[in-house]
Amino acid sequence: MSGGAAGTAVYAQSGGVTAVINATAFGVLEAARRHPDRIRALYAGRNGILGVLREELLDLGDIPESELAALLHTPGGAFGSCRYKLADPEQDAREYERLLQVFSAHGVRYFFYNGGGDSQDTALKVARLAARRGLALSCIGIPKTVDNDLPLTDNCPGFGSVAKYVAVSVREAALDVASMSDTSTKVFILEVMGRHAGWIAAAAGLAGQRPEEPPQIILFPEVPFEPKRFLEAVRRTVRGTGYCVIVVSEGARDAAGRFLAESDERDAFGHAQLGGAAPAVAALVRRELGYKIHWAVADYLQRSARHLASRVDVEQARALGRAAVKLALEGQTGVLPIILRRSDDPYRWEIGSARLEEVANRERKLPPEYLREDGFGISAAGRRYLEPLIRGEDYPPYANGLPCYARLTPRRVTPLLPESFVPRS
Amino acid sequence: MSGGAAGTAVYAQSGGVTAVINATAFGVLEAARRHPDRIRALYAGRNGILGVLREELLDLGDIPESELAALLHTPGGAFGSCRYKLADPEQDAREYERLLQVFSAHGVRYFFYNGGGDSQDTALKVARLAARRGLALSCIGIPKTVDNDLPLTDNCPGFGSVAKYVAVSVREAALDVASMSDTSTKVFILEVMGRHAGWIAAAAGLAGQRPEEPPQIILFPEVPFEPKRFLEAVRRTVRGTGYCVIVVSEGARDAAGRFLAESDERDAFGHAQLGGAAPAVAALVRRELGYKIHWAVADYLQRSARHLASRVDVEQARALGRAAVKLALEGQTGVLPIILRRSDDPYRWEIGSARLEEVANRERKLPPEYLREDGFGISAAGRRYLEPLIRGEDYPPYANGLPCYARLTPRRVTPLLPESFVPRS
Repeated sequence: MSGGAAGTAVYAQSGGVTAVINATAFGVLEAARRHPDRIRALYAGRNGILGVLREELLDLGDIPESELAALLHTPGGAFGSCRYKLADPEQDAREYERLLQVFSAHGVRYFFYNGGGDSQDTALKVARLAARRGLALSCIGIPKTVDNDLPLTDNCPGFGSVAKYVAVSVREAALDVASMSDTSTKVFILEVMGRHAGWIAAAAGLAGQRPEEPPQIILFPEVPFEPKRFLEAVRRTVRGTGYCVIVVSEGARDAAGRFLAESDERDAFGHAQLGGAAPAVAALVRRELGYKIHWAVADYLQRSARHLASRVDVEQARALGRAAVKLALEGQTGVLPIILRRSDDPYRWEIGSARLEEVANRERKLPPEYLREDGFGISAAGRRYLEPLIRGEDYPPYANGLPCYARLTPRRVTPLLPESFVPRS
Repeated sequence: MSGGAAGTAVYAQSGGVTAVINATAFGVLEAARRHPDRIRALYAGRNGILGVLREELLDLGDIPESELAALLHTPGGAFGSCRYKLADPEQDAREYERLLQVFSAHGVRYFFYNGGGDSQDTALKVARLAARRGLALSCIGIPKTVDNDLPLTDNCPGFGSVAKYVAVSVREAALDVASMSDTSTKVFILEVMGRHAGWIAAAAGLAGQRPEEPPQIILFPEVPFEPKRFLEAVRRTVRGTGYCVIVVSEGARDAAGRFLAESDERDAFGHAQLGGAAPAVAALVRRELGYKIHWAVADYLQRSARHLASRVDVEQARALGRAAVKLALEGQTGVLPIILRRSDDPYRWEIGSARLEEVANRERKLPPEYLREDGFGISAAGRRYLEPLIRGEDYPPYANGLPCYARLTPRRVTPLLPESFVPRS
C-alpha cells in the first residue's frame, strides 16, 4: 500500500448511537491491528470528538482481541458519543486548532470519524485544515445513522437493525390487537424515530405484504397529515378488518409543517408537556371515532435493540470499519467508505467510497416512488429497497437470560498538552 | 385413566394475550390428540368465551400437527380472545345456561379456559352449575397473565417473556443513554405494564446487578410515589453516574392513590389526553431538574415480543396445556394446573394443581421483601425469584428477516342451536 505515514490512529463516534456502531469500531480495530508497522497505536476519543478536544483518549491497544470482539454484538457507543457541532472555523478556529494540537502531540496520522451528516462535515473541515497546513493526516469519515438519510451510500449502518426491530414489533403487536379487537382494543399506534425522513416508518411496512395487512396506515414526515382523510382511513380499516395498526413517524407533521408531537399539551400546572406523536394521534382517534386505543413509543428501544439486529446491517457496519482503514492506508483523506447495491434479488452489495464534500450536510428523504399511492404505506419499489436490509439474524450470546454485552475498560492515555480545553456548553 | 366420559373438548382464551398463550393451546392440542377415544373432537372458541356463547366454534381437528406446531412460537391469541365478564349467575343465569346448551348440543365433555383471575372465576361457575345439573363436564382452568398476579402458582405463563423483554430492553437502552449522556440525554424513562402489581417493573431490575447499575430507579404501584424523594434520587444518580434510567409501572400512583398516568393533561382543545406514566414522569423531571430526557412506552410490544421469549416460559406454558388435559382425563373438574417451584438454583419446577376457588378473583401483589430498602429497586430475594423465569432463548423461525408466525384458518363448526345469542355489549 502507498502513503508513507506511520503513527497513531484515533477513532471517534458521534451523534446518536446505534445497535451496530460498535461493529464498525471493531472493523476499524481488527483492520488496524493487522498493520502495526503503519498504525502504531489505536486510540478512541472518549465521548467522541469531545474526547479529542479534552485530550481524553482511550488506548485500545492493551485490550485482547477476544475481548474486543464483544463489540460486534454490543449496542450503544462503547467509548461514548456526543452531540457537539464544532464552531465554523471561518468564525472561530480554536476548536480545529486544538484538534490538530492534540493530533500532533500524540503523533496521530489517521483520524476516523464515525457519524452522520454533521460529523462528515467536521471530518471534511479537519481534512482541509490539515492539508492546508501540509500535515500528514488522513481524515476518513465512516457513515452511521439510524435515520438512513445520508446521500450516495445505499443505506446507513444502524438503519437495517432499527428497520428489522420496527417491522418485527409491528408484526407482533398486530397479532395482539387482532386477538383483542372483538371486545377491546381496536386501534394500536406505534411511534418510531425519524424526525426529518420517513425511512424507519417505511420499514414498518415490511410487517405486512398487502394493504389490508397491518400496519394499514403509516404516517410519514414526507406526507402532510390531513386529519379528515386519516380518520376516514382508520374508520374504513376498523370496519373492514376489525382493527387498525398505525405507525407514526416522530417527524409526521401537518400541511403547515407543525409536528403532530407538538400539539399544545399542557399539564395540570399549564406547563408544556413533552410531546409524542403517538399520544397525539391516539387522542385524535379516540375523540373523533371513540375506539379503544393502545399506543407505544419505541424511542431508544428501537435503536439499541441489538438482540434483534439485522445480520446484513452488522456485516455492513463491520465492513465499513475495515474499509475506512484500507482507505487511510492507501493515503487517502477527505473520503468515506459507502455501501453500493449491486442487485436487489439476490441482494448483492460491495464497499465503495465517496468524497466527504459529496455527503456532508446533505439529507436524503424517502423518495415519492417508495410510497403507496394513498400515502399511507410503501410501494413495491420501497419494499424492494428495504427488504434486503433486515435480512438475517445475528443474536448476541446470553447468560442467565440476558445478553452479554461488552464492558471494556480501556486505559486513558496520559495527556501531553500543557493546557486543558473546555468545550463550549 | 379414570373418568368415563368421551366427547368433544372446547378450549378458549380469555383476557389480554401473551407471547406464549398459543404454546399453552398447543399443549392442550397435542395432549388431546393422544386420546382420540376420549376426546373425539377439539374445538376452540372464536374470541374466547364469546365464541362459545355465539356458537362460533373452530374445529382444530382438520389442521395437521405440523401446522399447529407454529403455535409454539406465535404470539397473540391464535383463535382470538375477549374481555368479557359473564354476568353473576345469581342475578342473570342466561349466559351460563347458554354455555351449557352449546356444550350439550356439541357433546362437549371437556372445557379448558385459559385466562387470568376473572376467567378462573368463570370456569369455576361453569363447573359448579354443571355439577348441580349432574352433567358430565370437566371444567379445567389454565393460568395465563403477563401481570403474574395469580395466587398459588409460582408464576404465570406470559410473565417470564415480558420480564425478559423488559430486562433486555432496559439493558440495551441504558447503554444508549450512557453513550449520549455527556452532552445530550441524561434521563431515560421506560413505562411498563402492571396496573395493579409491580411484577413487570420488578423484572426490569434484572438488567443491572448493583444499585448504581441501570435501572437505578423503579417506580412500583406498591410504593406510593413521593415526588421530592424521587427527584432527589434522580439528581443524585445523574450527579454520581452521569445518567439515570427509570422504569415506571403504568400502575404507579401517589399517596392519594392517583395514577401518575392520570395527570390532568389537556390538548389544545382542552380535551383530556390519553395518559401515560412515562410522559408524566418525564415532564416532572424536566420541569424540576431541567435534564434532557427520552421516554418510551412499551405497551403491546412487551407482551407480544415472541422474538425474545423466555424458554422457561414457553416450556411452562406448553406443560400447563398438557397438564390441563391430563387433569380432565382423570375426571377432575373445577381445578387448574399450576407451577410449583422446587428450587431456585438450580431452578427446578413441576406441575401441580389447585382448586379454582383458591385462585379465582384473588390478586397476588409483589411482596415487600422483594423490594430494595429504598423502594426504588429489587432485593436479593426478588432477584432470586425473578431470575430463573427469564432463562433461555427460544427464537421463532425467520424468513426474509421476519419471524414466521402461524396463520391458522380452522373450519367453523356448523351451528346446531336454533337461536343465536347476542352478548351484552
